[in-house]
Amino acid sequence: MIQVAVVTFDGFNELDSFIASALINRCRSQGLEALITTPTPVVTSMNGVEVTGQRPIGFVTEADVVLIGSGVKTRDVVADDRMLAMLPLDPSRQLIGSQCSGALVLARLGLLGTMPACVDVTTRPFVEACGVTVLDAPFHAEGNIATAGGCLGSQYLGAWVITRTLGEEAARAAVDYVAPVGEEQQTVDRVLGAVRTGQAVLR
Amino acid sequence: MIQVAVVTFDGFNELDSFIASALINRCRSQGLEALITTPTPVVTSMNGVEVTGQRPIGFVTEADVVLIGSGVKTRDVVADDRMLAMLPLDPSRQLIGSQCSGALVLARLGLLGTMPACVDVTTRPFVEACGVTVLDAPFHAEGNIATAGGCLGSQYLGAWVITRTLGEEAARAAVDYVAPVGEEQQTVDRVLGAVRTGQAVLR
Repeated sequence: MIQVAVVTFDGFNELDSFIASALINRCRSQGLEALITTPTPVVTSMNGVEVTGQRPIGFVTEADVVLIGSGVKTRDVVADDRMLAMLPLDPSRQLIGSQCSGALVLARLGLLGTMPACVDVTTRPFVEACGVTVLDAPFHAEGNIATAGGCLGSQYLGAWVITRTLGEEAARAAVDYVAPVGEEQQTVDRVLGAVRTGQAVLR
Repeated sequence: MIQVAVVTFDGFNELDSFIASALINRCRSQGLEALITTPTPVVTSMNGVEVTGQRPIGFVTEADVVLIGSGVKTRDVVADDRMLAMLPLDPSRQLIGSQCSGALVLARLGLLGTMPACVDVTTRPFVEACGVTVLDAPFHAEGNIATAGGCLGSQYLGAWVITRTLGEEAARAAVDYVAPVGEEQQTVDRVLGAVRTGQAVLR
Protein backbone atom coordinates (compact mmCIF):
# COMPACT_ATOMS: atom_id res chain seq x y z
CA MET A 1 0.00 0.00 0.00
CA ILE A 2 1.29 3.46 -0.91
CA GLN A 3 0.56 5.58 2.17
CA VAL A 4 -0.15 9.28 2.30
CA ALA A 5 0.16 11.17 5.61
CA VAL A 6 -2.22 14.14 5.60
CA VAL A 7 -0.65 16.15 8.41
CA THR A 8 -3.40 17.93 10.29
CA PHE A 9 -2.68 20.37 13.10
CA ASP A 10 -4.93 21.86 15.74
CA GLY A 11 -7.00 24.69 14.24
CA PHE A 12 -7.02 22.93 10.87
CA ASN A 13 -9.20 23.88 7.91
CA GLU A 14 -11.50 20.96 7.07
CA LEU A 15 -11.45 21.68 3.33
CA ASP A 16 -7.67 21.51 3.20
CA SER A 17 -7.26 18.15 4.95
CA PHE A 18 -10.42 16.35 3.86
CA ILE A 19 -10.72 17.21 0.17
CA ALA A 20 -7.23 15.86 -0.53
CA SER A 21 -7.60 12.81 1.73
CA ALA A 22 -11.08 11.82 0.51
CA LEU A 23 -10.06 12.20 -3.14
CA ILE A 24 -6.94 10.09 -2.61
CA ASN A 25 -8.93 7.46 -0.72
CA ARG A 26 -11.08 6.89 -3.83
CA CYS A 27 -7.98 4.96 -4.97
CA ARG A 28 -7.69 2.68 -1.94
CA SER A 29 -8.60 -0.41 -3.96
CA GLN A 30 -5.70 0.44 -6.25
CA GLY A 31 -3.23 0.50 -3.37
CA LEU A 32 -3.14 4.18 -2.44
CA GLU A 33 -4.38 5.32 0.96
CA ALA A 34 -4.52 8.66 2.81
CA LEU A 35 -4.48 8.86 6.61
CA ILE A 36 -5.15 11.87 8.82
CA THR A 37 -1.90 12.28 10.75
CA THR A 38 -1.87 14.42 13.89
CA PRO A 39 0.64 15.65 16.51
CA THR A 40 -1.84 14.94 19.34
CA PRO A 41 -4.41 12.10 19.53
CA VAL A 42 -7.25 14.56 18.85
CA VAL A 43 -7.16 17.84 16.94
CA THR A 44 -9.90 20.47 16.76
CA SER A 45 -10.66 22.25 13.51
CA MET A 46 -10.91 26.02 13.08
CA ASN A 47 -14.69 25.48 13.21
CA GLY A 48 -14.62 23.44 16.41
CA VAL A 49 -14.83 19.93 14.95
CA GLU A 50 -12.87 17.34 16.96
CA VAL A 51 -11.16 14.70 14.85
CA THR A 52 -9.17 11.72 16.11
CA GLY A 53 -5.94 11.22 14.19
CA GLN A 54 -5.61 7.98 12.23
CA ARG A 55 -1.84 8.00 12.64
CA PRO A 56 0.53 9.76 15.09
CA ILE A 57 2.90 12.38 13.71
CA GLY A 58 5.79 9.87 13.64
CA PHE A 59 4.02 8.25 10.68
CA VAL A 60 5.49 10.98 8.43
CA THR A 61 8.82 9.14 8.41
CA GLU A 62 7.18 5.94 7.08
CA ALA A 63 4.77 7.53 4.64
CA ASP A 64 5.48 7.58 0.90
CA VAL A 65 3.71 10.91 0.55
CA VAL A 66 3.34 13.71 3.11
CA LEU A 67 0.81 16.52 2.66
CA ILE A 68 0.94 19.39 5.14
CA GLY A 69 -2.56 20.74 5.75
CA SER A 70 -3.49 24.28 6.63
CA GLY A 71 -5.25 26.02 9.46
CA VAL A 72 -5.40 29.03 11.71
CA LYS A 73 -2.45 28.02 13.91
CA THR A 74 0.27 27.25 11.36
CA ARG A 75 2.33 30.21 12.55
CA ASP A 76 2.44 28.61 16.01
CA VAL A 77 3.54 25.34 14.38
CA VAL A 78 6.48 26.92 12.58
CA ALA A 79 7.50 28.83 15.74
CA ASP A 80 7.75 25.51 17.62
CA ASP A 81 11.13 23.85 17.06
CA ARG A 82 9.96 20.64 18.73
CA MET A 83 7.08 20.40 16.26
CA LEU A 84 9.35 21.03 13.27
CA ALA A 85 11.76 18.37 14.56
CA MET A 86 8.88 15.89 14.32
CA LEU A 87 8.73 16.47 10.55
CA PRO A 88 12.00 15.03 9.15
CA LEU A 89 10.74 14.93 5.57
CA ASP A 90 12.88 13.62 2.74
CA PRO A 91 12.04 14.74 -0.81
CA SER A 92 14.55 12.28 -2.25
CA ARG A 93 12.25 9.38 -1.31
CA GLN A 94 8.92 11.08 -0.50
CA LEU A 95 6.41 13.16 -2.41
CA ILE A 96 5.79 16.25 -0.30
CA GLY A 97 2.96 18.74 -0.70
CA SER A 98 1.49 21.68 1.14
CA GLN A 99 -1.94 23.21 1.20
CA CYS A 100 -2.25 26.99 1.84
CA SER A 101 -0.38 27.85 5.06
CA GLY A 102 1.26 24.40 5.00
CA ALA A 103 3.76 26.07 2.64
CA LEU A 104 5.09 27.96 5.69
CA VAL A 105 6.07 24.61 7.18
CA LEU A 106 7.85 23.55 3.98
CA ALA A 107 9.64 26.92 3.88
CA ARG A 108 10.79 26.64 7.51
CA LEU A 109 11.97 23.07 6.88
CA GLY A 110 14.09 24.42 4.01
CA LEU A 111 12.28 22.25 1.47
CA LEU A 112 11.24 24.94 -0.99
CA GLY A 113 14.77 26.01 -1.90
CA THR A 114 14.41 28.48 -4.74
CA MET A 115 11.06 27.20 -5.98
CA PRO A 116 8.05 29.52 -5.87
CA ALA A 117 4.95 28.48 -3.94
CA CYS A 118 1.17 28.66 -4.07
CA VAL A 119 -0.55 29.79 -0.88
CA ASP A 120 -3.76 31.53 0.18
CA VAL A 121 -3.87 35.34 0.34
CA THR A 122 -3.78 35.40 4.15
CA THR A 123 -0.59 33.34 4.33
CA ARG A 124 1.11 35.08 1.42
CA PRO A 125 3.02 37.79 3.36
CA PHE A 126 4.35 35.25 5.87
CA VAL A 127 5.65 32.94 3.15
CA GLU A 128 7.14 35.91 1.31
CA ALA A 129 8.88 36.92 4.55
CA CYS A 130 10.68 33.55 4.34
CA GLY A 131 12.13 34.68 1.01
CA VAL A 132 9.76 32.54 -1.09
CA THR A 133 8.15 33.91 -4.25
CA VAL A 134 4.38 33.41 -4.20
CA LEU A 135 2.58 32.69 -7.48
CA ASP A 136 -0.85 33.99 -8.44
CA ALA A 137 -1.82 30.42 -9.28
CA PRO A 138 -3.55 27.54 -7.50
CA PHE A 139 -0.91 24.82 -7.92
CA HIS A 140 2.80 24.51 -8.54
CA ALA A 141 5.11 21.50 -8.39
CA GLU A 142 8.80 20.95 -9.00
CA GLY A 143 10.15 17.45 -8.77
CA ASN A 144 8.78 15.78 -5.65
CA ILE A 145 7.47 18.97 -4.04
CA ALA A 146 4.11 20.63 -4.65
CA THR A 147 2.18 23.53 -3.17
CA ALA A 148 -1.49 24.47 -3.57
CA GLY A 149 -3.27 27.69 -2.66
CA GLY A 150 -6.93 28.39 -1.90
CA CYS A 151 -8.95 25.79 0.03
CA LEU A 152 -10.49 24.19 -3.06
CA GLY A 153 -6.99 24.00 -4.57
CA SER A 154 -6.67 20.87 -2.40
CA GLN A 155 -8.38 19.03 -5.28
CA TYR A 156 -5.26 19.73 -7.32
CA LEU A 157 -2.92 18.56 -4.58
CA GLY A 158 -4.87 15.30 -4.23
CA ALA A 159 -4.95 14.77 -8.00
CA TRP A 160 -1.18 15.42 -8.20
CA VAL A 161 -0.56 12.70 -5.61
CA ILE A 162 -2.70 10.21 -7.56
CA THR A 163 -1.05 11.18 -10.86
CA ARG A 164 2.46 10.77 -9.44
CA THR A 165 1.74 7.44 -7.73
CA LEU A 166 -0.84 5.63 -9.88
CA GLY A 167 -0.85 7.69 -13.07
CA GLU A 168 -3.11 10.17 -14.80
CA GLU A 169 -5.83 7.65 -15.66
CA ALA A 170 -6.38 6.87 -11.97
CA ALA A 171 -6.52 10.59 -11.17
CA ARG A 172 -9.04 11.10 -13.94
CA ALA A 173 -11.28 8.32 -12.58
CA ALA A 174 -11.10 9.60 -8.99
CA VAL A 175 -11.96 13.18 -9.99
CA ASP A 176 -14.74 11.94 -12.28
CA TYR A 177 -16.27 10.05 -9.35
CA VAL A 178 -16.33 13.01 -6.93
CA ALA A 179 -17.35 15.64 -9.53
CA PRO A 180 -20.77 17.26 -9.39
CA VAL A 181 -23.23 15.12 -11.39
CA GLY A 182 -23.41 16.25 -15.02
CA GLU A 183 -20.14 18.22 -14.68
CA GLU A 184 -17.78 15.23 -14.72
CA GLN A 185 -15.92 16.09 -17.93
CA GLN A 186 -15.42 19.77 -17.18
CA THR A 187 -14.25 18.96 -13.65
CA VAL A 188 -11.75 16.36 -14.85
CA ASP A 189 -10.44 18.75 -17.51
CA ARG A 190 -10.08 21.60 -15.02
CA VAL A 191 -8.40 19.57 -12.27
CA LEU A 192 -6.01 17.61 -14.47
CA GLY A 193 -5.31 20.76 -16.47
CA ALA A 194 -4.35 22.64 -13.31
CA VAL A 195 -2.00 19.85 -12.25
CA ARG A 196 -0.39 19.72 -15.68
CA THR A 197 -0.04 23.51 -15.87
CA GLY A 198 1.35 23.68 -12.33
CA GLN A 199 4.06 21.18 -13.16
CA ALA A 200 5.03 22.94 -16.36
CA VAL A 201 4.82 26.60 -15.36
CA LEU A 202 7.77 28.78 -16.28
CA ARG A 203 9.52 30.66 -13.53
CA MET B 1 -27.29 33.17 14.99
CA ILE B 2 -28.81 31.25 12.06
CA GLN B 3 -27.88 27.62 12.72
CA VAL B 4 -27.30 24.89 10.19
CA ALA B 5 -27.35 21.23 11.29
CA VAL B 6 -25.11 19.18 9.00
CA VAL B 7 -26.47 15.72 9.76
CA THR B 8 -23.61 13.25 9.61
CA PHE B 9 -24.14 9.52 10.01
CA ASP B 10 -21.69 6.72 10.65
CA GLY B 11 -19.90 5.80 7.40
CA PHE B 12 -20.16 9.40 6.20
CA ASN B 13 -18.34 10.84 3.21
CA GLU B 14 -16.00 13.63 4.38
CA LEU B 15 -16.47 15.68 1.22
CA ASP B 16 -20.23 15.74 1.62
CA SER B 17 -20.33 16.95 5.24
CA PHE B 18 -17.23 19.12 5.38
CA ILE B 19 -17.34 21.07 2.11
CA ALA B 20 -20.83 22.38 2.90
CA SER B 21 -20.09 23.03 6.58
CA ALA B 22 -16.72 24.73 6.05
CA LEU B 23 -18.13 26.94 3.27
CA ILE B 24 -21.08 27.98 5.43
CA ASN B 25 -18.80 28.64 8.40
CA ARG B 26 -16.95 31.29 6.36
CA CYS B 27 -20.09 33.35 7.19
CA ARG B 28 -19.97 32.89 10.95
CA SER B 29 -19.13 36.55 11.55
CA GLN B 30 -22.29 37.38 9.61
CA GLY B 31 -24.46 35.27 11.89
CA LEU B 32 -24.60 31.95 10.01
CA GLU B 33 -23.07 28.84 11.54
CA ALA B 34 -22.89 25.15 10.55
CA LEU B 35 -22.55 22.38 13.13
CA ILE B 36 -21.79 18.71 12.57
CA THR B 37 -24.83 16.95 14.00
CA THR B 38 -24.62 13.24 14.76
CA PRO B 39 -26.91 10.45 16.05
CA THR B 40 -24.13 9.11 18.30
CA PRO B 41 -21.43 11.12 20.14
CA VAL B 42 -18.77 9.92 17.69
CA VAL B 43 -19.19 8.88 14.04
CA THR B 44 -16.59 7.22 11.83
CA SER B 45 -16.24 8.21 8.18
CA MET B 46 -16.18 5.79 5.25
CA ASN B 47 -12.40 6.25 5.33
CA GLY B 48 -12.05 5.51 9.04
CA VAL B 49 -11.85 9.06 10.40
CA GLU B 50 -13.49 9.46 13.83
CA VAL B 51 -15.30 12.74 14.32
CA THR B 52 -17.02 13.94 17.48
CA GLY B 53 -20.41 15.52 16.78
CA GLN B 54 -20.80 19.18 17.65
CA ARG B 55 -24.51 18.73 18.33
CA PRO B 56 -26.69 15.67 19.09
CA ILE B 57 -29.31 14.66 16.54
CA GLY B 58 -32.07 16.39 18.50
CA PHE B 59 -30.56 19.68 17.32
CA VAL B 60 -32.36 19.20 13.98
CA THR B 61 -35.60 20.42 15.57
CA GLU B 62 -33.96 23.71 16.67
CA ALA B 63 -31.88 24.34 13.57
CA ASP B 64 -32.97 26.86 10.95
CA VAL B 65 -31.39 24.77 8.20
CA VAL B 66 -30.86 20.99 8.06
CA LEU B 67 -28.51 19.38 5.55
CA ILE B 68 -28.51 15.59 5.35
CA GLY B 69 -25.03 14.33 4.52
CA SER B 70 -24.16 11.20 2.60
CA GLY B 71 -22.19 8.06 3.24
CA VAL B 72 -21.95 4.34 2.76
CA LYS B 73 -24.62 3.44 5.34
CA THR B 74 -27.56 5.63 4.32
CA ARG B 75 -29.59 2.60 3.34
CA ASP B 76 -29.28 1.36 6.94
CA VAL B 77 -30.40 4.79 8.13
CA VAL B 78 -33.58 4.79 6.05
CA ALA B 79 -34.36 1.19 7.09
CA ASP B 80 -34.28 2.27 10.75
CA ASP B 81 -37.63 3.73 11.83
CA ARG B 82 -36.17 4.95 15.13
CA MET B 83 -33.54 6.94 13.25
CA LEU B 84 -36.12 8.45 10.89
CA ALA B 85 -38.27 9.40 13.90
CA MET B 86 -35.32 11.46 15.16
CA LEU B 87 -35.59 13.65 12.04
CA PRO B 88 -38.91 15.52 12.36
CA LEU B 89 -38.02 18.13 9.73
CA ASP B 90 -40.40 20.93 8.83
CA PRO B 91 -39.98 22.61 5.43
CA SER B 92 -42.49 25.30 6.35
CA ARG B 93 -39.99 26.82 8.79
CA GLN B 94 -36.66 25.17 7.88
CA LEU B 95 -34.46 25.08 4.80
CA ILE B 96 -33.75 21.42 4.11
CA GLY B 97 -31.08 20.02 1.82
CA SER B 98 -29.57 16.68 0.95
CA GLN B 99 -26.20 15.66 -0.41
CA CYS B 100 -25.99 12.49 -2.58
CA SER B 101 -27.56 9.59 -0.68
CA GLY B 102 -29.05 12.05 1.81
CA ALA B 103 -31.85 12.37 -0.77
CA LEU B 104 -32.94 8.85 0.25
CA VAL B 105 -33.62 10.20 3.73
CA LEU B 106 -35.66 13.10 2.35
CA ALA B 107 -37.60 10.67 0.13
CA ARG B 108 -38.38 8.33 3.04
CA LEU B 109 -39.47 11.30 5.17
CA GLY B 110 -41.91 12.22 2.39
CA LEU B 111 -40.28 15.61 1.90
CA LEU B 112 -39.60 15.41 -1.83
CA GLY B 113 -43.25 15.15 -2.86
CA THR B 114 -43.27 15.31 -6.64
CA MET B 115 -40.02 17.24 -6.99
CA PRO B 116 -37.12 15.59 -8.82
CA ALA B 117 -33.81 15.13 -7.04
CA CYS B 118 -30.06 15.25 -7.64
CA VAL B 119 -28.07 12.29 -6.30
CA ASP B 120 -24.85 10.44 -7.07
CA VAL B 121 -24.88 7.59 -9.59
CA THR B 122 -24.58 4.90 -6.89
CA THR B 123 -27.65 6.14 -5.02
CA ARG B 124 -29.70 6.83 -8.14
CA PRO B 125 -31.52 3.46 -8.44
CA PHE B 126 -32.48 3.50 -4.75
CA VAL B 127 -33.96 6.98 -4.97
CA GLU B 128 -35.75 6.06 -8.19
CA ALA B 129 -37.18 3.03 -6.38
CA CYS B 130 -38.86 5.53 -4.02
CA GLY B 131 -40.68 6.95 -7.06
CA VAL B 132 -38.46 10.04 -7.30
CA THR B 133 -37.23 11.30 -10.68
CA VAL B 134 -33.45 11.78 -10.68
CA LEU B 135 -31.98 14.64 -12.71
CA ASP B 136 -28.70 14.51 -14.64
CA ALA B 137 -27.68 17.71 -12.86
CA PRO B 138 -25.66 18.62 -9.76
CA PHE B 139 -28.21 20.77 -7.93
CA HIS B 140 -31.96 21.27 -7.78
CA ALA B 141 -34.10 23.26 -5.38
CA GLU B 142 -37.82 23.92 -5.05
CA GLY B 143 -39.01 26.25 -2.32
CA ASN B 144 -37.25 25.34 0.92
CA ILE B 145 -35.91 21.98 -0.27
CA ALA B 146 -32.70 21.34 -2.20
CA THR B 147 -30.75 18.29 -3.34
CA ALA B 148 -27.19 18.04 -4.64
CA GLY B 149 -25.46 15.15 -6.39
CA GLY B 150 -21.77 14.29 -6.70
CA CYS B 151 -19.46 14.90 -3.73
CA LEU B 152 -18.18 18.26 -4.99
CA GLY B 153 -21.81 19.28 -5.59
CA SER B 154 -21.77 20.04 -1.85
CA GLN B 155 -20.29 23.43 -2.81
CA TYR B 156 -23.62 24.21 -4.44
CA LEU B 157 -25.63 23.06 -1.43
CA GLY B 158 -23.52 25.25 0.87
CA ALA B 159 -23.81 28.24 -1.48
CA TRP B 160 -27.59 27.76 -1.67
CA VAL B 161 -27.84 27.91 2.13
CA ILE B 162 -25.82 31.14 2.23
CA THR B 163 -27.82 32.65 -0.63
CA ARG B 164 -31.13 31.82 1.02
CA THR B 165 -30.12 33.07 4.48
CA LEU B 166 -27.69 35.97 3.93
CA GLY B 167 -28.10 36.70 0.22
CA GLU B 168 -26.12 36.17 -2.97
CA GLU B 169 -23.40 38.71 -2.10
CA ALA B 170 -22.47 36.74 1.02
CA ALA B 171 -22.39 33.50 -1.00
CA ARG B 172 -20.19 35.16 -3.59
CA ALA B 173 -17.72 36.31 -0.91
CA ALA B 174 -17.58 32.89 0.78
CA VAL B 175 -16.97 31.04 -2.49
CA ASP B 176 -14.39 33.62 -3.56
CA TYR B 177 -12.49 33.02 -0.31
CA VAL B 178 -12.31 29.22 -0.65
CA ALA B 179 -11.67 29.17 -4.42
CA PRO B 180 -8.31 28.04 -5.79
CA VAL B 181 -5.99 31.07 -5.98
CA GLY B 182 -6.24 32.77 -9.38
CA GLU B 183 -9.53 30.97 -10.15
CA GLU B 184 -11.75 33.07 -7.89
CA GLN B 185 -13.95 34.60 -10.58
CA GLN B 186 -14.54 31.40 -12.55
CA THR B 187 -15.31 29.49 -9.34
CA VAL B 188 -17.80 32.10 -8.14
CA ASP B 189 -19.47 32.17 -11.57
CA ARG B 190 -19.70 28.37 -11.72
CA VAL B 191 -21.01 27.86 -8.18
CA LEU B 192 -23.52 30.70 -8.16
CA GLY B 193 -24.56 29.80 -11.70
CA ALA B 194 -25.27 26.20 -10.64
CA VAL B 195 -27.38 27.39 -7.71
CA ARG B 196 -29.31 29.80 -9.92
CA THR B 197 -29.86 27.18 -12.63
CA GLY B 198 -30.88 24.56 -10.07
CA GLN B 199 -33.55 26.82 -8.65
CA ALA B 200 -34.92 27.72 -12.07
CA VAL B 201 -34.77 24.39 -13.88
CA LEU B 202 -37.89 23.35 -15.78
CA ARG B 203 -39.48 20.03 -14.96
